[in-house]
Amino acid sequence: MRKFLEPESVIVIGAPRKSGPGTFNNVEIMLRYGYKGRIYPINPNADEICGIKTYPSVADVPEVADLAVISVGRDRVMRMFEDCVRAGIQRVIIISQGFADADSRGAELQREIVKLAHAEGVRVIGPNTMGVINNFNHFTTSFVDFPFPDSFMPVSLIAQTGFFQVASRNLAYKNWGKAIDIGNTSDVDFVDALNYLEDDPETKVICIHMEGLKRGHEFIESASRVSLRKPIIVLKTGRSRAGAKAALSHSGSLVGEDEVFDAAFRRAGIIRVKDEKEMRDAMHALLLLGEMKGPRMGVLTVTGAGGIISADAAEEFGLVLSDLPEGLPEKLRKGMPQWIHVGNPIDIWPIGMIGGNYAGVFEEALKDLLIAPQVDGVLAIFPVSKSPLHSNFDLTGALRSARESAGNSKPVAIWDYIDSELFIDEFEQISGIACFDHIEQAVQGLSFSHRYYRIKNRRKPAVRTFSYEHTETSGLLILGKEQGYLSGGEALSFLKSFGLPVIESRLARSDEEVMDRADEIGFPLVLKLAGPAFLHKSEWGGVITGIKSKEELAFSIRKIRENVKSRDNGAVVDLFEVQRQAQGKELLIGLKKDPQFGHVIACGLGGIYTEVFRDVSREIVPIGRAEAEDMIRTLKIFPILKGVRGEEGVDLGAVYEALERISFMALEVPEIQELDMNPFIVSSTFCAAVDARIIF
Amino acid sequence: MRKFLEPESVIVIGAPRKSGPGTFNNVEIMLRYGYKGRIYPINPNADEICGIKTYPSVADVPEVADLAVISVGRDRVMRMFEDCVRAGIQRVIIISQGFADADSRGAELQREIVKLAHAEGVRVIGPNTMGVINNFNHFTTSFVDFPFPDSFMPVSLIAQTGFFQVASRNLAYKNWGKAIDIGNTSDVDFVDALNYLEDDPETKVICIHMEGLKRGHEFIESASRVSLRKPIIVLKTGRSRAGAKAALSHSGSLVGEDEVFDAAFRRAGIIRVKDEKEMRDAMHALLLLGEMKGPRMGVLTVTGAGGIISADAAEEFGLVLSDLPEGLPEKLRKGMPQWIHVGNPIDIWPIGMIGGNYAGVFEEALKDLLIAPQVDGVLAIFPVSKSPLHSNFDLTGALRSARESAGNSKPVAIWDYIDSELFIDEFEQISGIACFDHIEQAVQGLSFSHRYYRIKNRRKPAVRTFSYEHTETSGLLILGKEQGYLSGGEALSFLKSFGLPVIESRLARSDEEVMDRADEIGFPLVLKLAGPAFLHKSEWGGVITGIKSKEELAFSIRKIRENVKSRDNGAVVDLFEVQRQAQGKELLIGLKKDPQFGHVIACGLGGIYTEVFRDVSREIVPIGRAEAEDMIRTLKIFPILKGVRGEEGVDLGAVYEALERISFMALEVPEIQELDMNPFIVSSTFCAAVDARIIF
Repeated sequence: MRKFLEPESVIVIGAPRKSGPGTFNNVEIMLRYGYKGRIYPINPNADEICGIKTYPSVADVPEVADLAVISVGRDRVMRMFEDCVRAGIQRVIIISQGFADADSRGAELQREIVKLAHAEGVRVIGPNTMGVINNFNHFTTSFVDFPFPDSFMPVSLIAQTGFFQVASRNLAYKNWGKAIDIGNTSDVDFVDALNYLEDDPETKVICIHMEGLKRGHEFIESASRVSLRKPIIVLKTGRSRAGAKAALSHSGSLVGEDEVFDAAFRRAGIIRVKDEKEMRDAMHALLLLGEMKGPRMGVLTVTGAGGIISADAAEEFGLVLSDLPEGLPEKLRKGMPQWIHVGNPIDIWPIGMIGGNYAGVFEEALKDLLIAPQVDGVLAIFPVSKSPLHSNFDLTGALRSARESAGNSKPVAIWDYIDSELFIDEFEQISGIACFDHIEQAVQGLSFSHRYYRIKNRRKPAVRTFSYEHTETSGLLILGKEQGYLSGGEALSFLKSFGLPVIESRLARSDEEVMDRADEIGFPLVLKLAGPAFLHKSEWGGVITGIKSKEELAFSIRKIRENVKSRDNGAVVDLFEVQRQAQGKELLIGLKKDPQFGHVIACGLGGIYTEVFRDVSREIVPIGRAEAEDMIRTLKIFPILKGVRGEEGVDLGAVYEALERISFMALEVPEIQELDMNPFIVSSTFCAAVDARIIF
Repeated sequence: MRKFLEPESVIVIGAPRKSGPGTFNNVEIMLRYGYKGRIYPINPNADEICGIKTYPSVADVPEVADLAVISVGRDRVMRMFEDCVRAGIQRVIIISQGFADADSRGAELQREIVKLAHAEGVRVIGPNTMGVINNFNHFTTSFVDFPFPDSFMPVSLIAQTGFFQVASRNLAYKNWGKAIDIGNTSDVDFVDALNYLEDDPETKVICIHMEGLKRGHEFIESASRVSLRKPIIVLKTGRSRAGAKAALSHSGSLVGEDEVFDAAFRRAGIIRVKDEKEMRDAMHALLLLGEMKGPRMGVLTVTGAGGIISADAAEEFGLVLSDLPEGLPEKLRKGMPQWIHVGNPIDIWPIGMIGGNYAGVFEEALKDLLIAPQVDGVLAIFPVSKSPLHSNFDLTGALRSARESAGNSKPVAIWDYIDSELFIDEFEQISGIACFDHIEQAVQGLSFSHRYYRIKNRRKPAVRTFSYEHTETSGLLILGKEQGYLSGGEALSFLKSFGLPVIESRLARSDEEVMDRADEIGFPLVLKLAGPAFLHKSEWGGVITGIKSKEELAFSIRKIRENVKSRDNGAVVDLFEVQRQAQGKELLIGLKKDPQFGHVIACGLGGIYTEVFRDVSREIVPIGRAEAEDMIRTLKIFPILKGVRGEEGVDLGAVYEALERISFMALEVPEIQELDMNPFIVSSTFCAAVDARIIF
């Protein structure tokens, strides 16, 4: 990968003879960008392009260049690629469009290229790409001209588009240091790019623009490792139905279910952002603020109204207002009018203004907040001005001095106003300080820092193994694979063989047997008509629920017999099913084999409201107890499951174990495509799948 | 109000003798800002301040000034205010802090000032305010210096803080034209300020920063009127618990339940934004884009990836991708390679690049989208560059020409990149065009335009009156007011007297009577133990539900008698309640008298999940049928209520009518403080309140 971004020599195939507006001459752009390596334009109809000697074909180039860039019409790409292979070139960027991004003929052309590349060990970026930027050595393969940036950051981009590169100033905080457009990802993909950036000393933060993903498991593995060393931020697009549709036509990427990506990103330690603005704020925060070790924020403000906005934002972004360090309120109020309050947010304006030493008070308060063990990070809100009337506000000095006195690196997010842009660079030279456009963004910035701290300190799932009834399992598995599915009692038996709790159910051939089975199972129970003649039990009036006593049971047997008789006088009732009546909250527990990420386990609100509230959490298999607990704790219905207002909670331990066992089962039986336990009923004393369906 | 912002003469009380850093000298700042009116500083210890003749007291000023600005310690404010009143001054801005914003002594001082003001007909802004800015006449009362802006917009601000004025460049799009900090709102408040801006020709868009509100009904009335003429944007802070707590300490405003503000704003035609950034984008969009008559957006993009992002954003912000005008795809594909697709989003980059006339293709496509009846607004995504290599991209010309050829004012939101800031002013001079920082904001900008169109074209609630049983009502009302509440059967009877559907329920004194009542009501039903001896029926085992037949009923009577006997052998069972078994979806319908906005009607998901999902809609009373329908349609559970996947829906007409009747009842019985119908059960054939509680 490295030489894709740091080539010493580049062959440019398809460079036009003409230059200037409308020619999109990438040799011209490469030169303007300041690239100092050797360039070999290929064009049989030109002697020179932009003053550089031109060669009629790749074979004529006097060296084996580090990289070739192809931008010719799609039908000529394969020929040019073959030329490169023959010449021993090991890295090719294919700019041209019209491949898997376009139509089936294009997809076929792309497959042929990849086949040859794999056979010959040549790596390919693209097709349908703008290639790479590496500002550390003034290199670009772009065909759109944009200025070499005044400044750039050690933030690297992996994208499935070129516009994130071209719009570097608009989308990145300052500018990307490096950017790789993997285009149609025919060969080089997210995993390759990520593995390269892992050890790249010029990369401190990684941003990813993703439409779809092919090697899901490898991606999780790689990102899990890299995220322990550098923050990874992902903007995953195509999350709406309309967006997913547009994505399919854009790059032919596989666009998976959006919530599954959430689960995968969480597992991989990736910070997902929802839009371009958030991506910019996240990289800004993670680059400059470092890690915030807890959620407790101290707020230093010159405006009460701004304090309120920061409190709103704290709640939104999962931070809390910290307690104040002991003694600070008293110190600040000293010599002030009685009516001045000091709380968090600390409104230091009246104190600074009345005392006539705003910068001094600010420094003192900031230092104390930074030192305080109960404060994990600070938000500071203040005006900065080049007005001679405010020349006594040396905030840069105050910030630097507070940082030095405190002697730690707790993050300080700033929202400054009036002449902000004149001070930002000055402030941000001090370690652990970043300035944001708005109060809410500053608070969110701190929240990103805290999230990354938790990511770096997370544990791997502690996956348990369980013993299970192999004989029972394998019999049903054979049946399931034959049928393609297991449902009802068979599915429940399969689950039971893995130690999962399923509803107790017995068959009975006579009224007496029904009574006996009821004794074994206990009330309340459900009585169902059974036997092959009565597949649609309900239509026969063959299901009675909520039977609470022997009397009711006897009555119910009679009732079902009557119901059947009234529908078909000749029908013979010779089999009943007696089932424990499930009582409790309705959950849904499921498993799905995702094409990218393999088995995904899901758990949430079951019943009629499943679809409307979508209160479901997902995890990539395998999970341990901690992940199972997280899945339940992050549900909106968690308070209800836990028990609220004196109402008894459900047996959460049983649910956690069920989730762990499902995860274990998925590892043991990779053939499972889909599993649905809906409903899975749970109360303080009851926990069981009542119905299930497994697809193989 | 006008002269608060356009005074010809100002008395400045408390102006310090010294000027420069640390003095916060508002005379000095007023002069620097360029104010040309007459200034009368009051200071007994100075002859002149900043070269302006100073007076020892207000009485010495040679004219009755239009405005006085007081900024002295809180204990001296009253004396100064009295001086102003005596001198016949009619408008006073009190800058000083330490009033209702501080402690009870401050609140008392504030009350005294207001009392005098009301008695003498003097209007007061503040205390605890920065006063006003009016850039149209270079006027400010600020004590923090900030530069007079290079440019400003006809956007006016009403805020409960000064920092929104000082941070004008950061928070406003360009800058506010006028700003009023109403501070503690002791006298001049939102309603006064709004009424002034209604007819102000220098105000096209109104922004409000609100922490709390006092005259809720007047505010709704005023905003409802003003919003038909000018967009009103509100940033309501203190929405989190922490924020609300901080708000109380900031200005002593009443901070109401956040969702009630949502309902009030909706009723008033106000666009609520969630943060500073959104406020800025909203004013920008509403100022420049005008109204978008439908939700259908055409997207013109140079990047497929950007198209996907715009599709995601459209879904998020309630817009849809339009169909393309007939003939446009064919026209664009003419002469292009076979593989080029044209859909919406239209990726015109390959077409423009291959054809060598990007600006021409852009203009053509934009013109056709603007003309097309199936397109309500356009999003355009493109690079803009000062590079000589892209000098053939005359996008300004293309935009202007497409606008002229189309001959209409449909909004065009732009995200342009590379050298954006060099082009924005040029683009925005063309009518109906606005440029945003990111794609998502541009789409949201269009959505604001569409929302304002709907606001301008909304209807007033068509409120119906209903006849009701006055005798029944007034008897229960007397009882309710005596007790402070009505509950159970009494509450249900009260509701029934207003024609609301309540559960059918009969008393029965013997087993035979129980059987007869059951015949009248019909199965399934609930049998309950009744009578004063059995207040806690459940503890006596006195409630049996789901009784489906006479046999079960007979069995249930026996069972209850046994249950009672087993608990107290001597207890006599001589009264039962027979109630129809409610079957259907559990809703919650409620009414609450809000201190600011009066009666608020609420409707949503009932049962155990009420709190966790908070799927409740609210409207300010009174409502008509349309509002009732909106309340239900905006619920997440609406698909379930309507009927989904072959499952029968509920009787929505009955629910709508119940809501209208509740609204009517609230108007007739203003004494109702709170009403809860929980559960309110509804199915396709059933609709009734099963239990209720009314607080008077």
